[in-house]
Amino acid sequence: MDLHQLPSRLLENAVNEFSKLPGIGKKTALRLVLHILHQPKEDTLAFSHAIEKMKNDIKICKKCHNISEEELCSICSNPNRDESLICVVESIKEIIAIESTSQYKGLYHVLGGRISPMDGIGPKELNMETLENRIKNEEISEVILALSTNMEGDTTNFYIYRRLADGKVPITTLARGISVGDELEYTDEITLGKSLINRIPYHGK
Amino acid sequence: MDLHQLPSRLLENAVNEFSKLPGIGKKTALRLVLHILHQPKEDTLAFSHAIEKMKNDIKICKKCHNISEEELCSICSNPNRDESLICVVESIKEIIAIESTSQYKGLYHVLGGRISPMDGIGPKELNMETLENRIKNEEISEVILALSTNMEGDTTNFYIYRRLADGKVPITTLARGISVGDELEYTDEITLGKSLINRIPYHGK
Repeated sequence: MDLHQLPSRLLENAVNEFSKLPGIGKKTALRLVLHILHQPKEDTLAFSHAIEKMKNDIKICKKCHNISEEELCSICSNPNRDESLICVVESIKEIIAIESTSQYKGLYHVLGGRISPMDGIGPKELNMETLENRIKNEEISEVILALSTNMEGDTTNFYIYRRLADGKVPITTLARGISVGDELEYTDEITLGKSLINRIPYHGK
Repeated sequence: MDLHQLPSRLLENAVNEFSKLPGIGKKTALRLVLHILHQPKEDTLAFSHAIEKMKNDIKICKKCHNISEEELCSICSNPNRDESLICVVESIKEIIAIESTSQYKGLYHVLGGRISPMDGIGPKELNMETLENRIKNEEISEVILALSTNMEGDTTNFYIYRRLADGKVPITTLARGISVGDELEYTDEITLGKSLINRIPYHGK
């Protein structure tokens, strides 16, 4: 199907805009646009207003760089969270993932990426200084590094470790090991090796 | 990832609106919304304006029910098209597909669906009367039925055939046969059978 022959410029513009989104090709964009074309007008307005309102009104938390509707995000301003714990993550996607486990009651720090010289991202492009200031100026008992387990993540971990190493704050990282439910025989050797080295006491639970 | 724990209502609303689109789940919606959150504001406005403008300004061609920016669509108002041919299609998706072949120079008629009693769609829900009026009031030399090759498409073909059968307008349907490039041994038997029955003279081309 040749999408250069759309019957209307207005349709074409909408299809082009949709296909700029990640993972949306021209055909999918056309399907979405035709759906919008046939839906009631209120639904379309609700859609575009929700997007514009989000874009206009969302702020970045001045403490942890999470997205927020106030100066401080809902996590930083929650009195029930442990303010002495900082979990360092790449983006708010990881905050959502960790929050959904209900296993963490501390605060976060969003780096905004990971060190990747190939993509021109160095420490200066990340929220590194604000992290250092938090550790200097607040009473922090532990910094948990929760970055991706790949080369850039490891580099970023190591950089943060070196930069904070002069302080007295313990730095930890997430346990690497076999996923719950995984079969040993299909686990890759690096993960299996690390899970052997980092084996933990068994308490019969 | 539990998406009930999004850090902001504004984000949640935008994710909910995106996930109402066909084929977009909550996870994809979140990915799209986070992309929008990080893009420049102009891009977001261009996106939402293109959609609103399309929704507000697109009209339906009063002759063939194609989408249009004027009273008559770009095909109906094109003096180079053959006004005596009507190709009956289900939706504008089929117009786009047929136009991309560059093999058809007549006009269209968009039914807006096909007869499907299971979904409560009868002839009254389709643009059947306007089709009949066009055939009565204009000089039409041929009506080409280009509906889907499934039960509802066949039912709709048959209904139109019966309804127009008293007129003198020839009614044709698209050739069914083996797709160009298909291997005979993998062609389903119904298609293969029809292509045998409807075999055409071979002119060495």
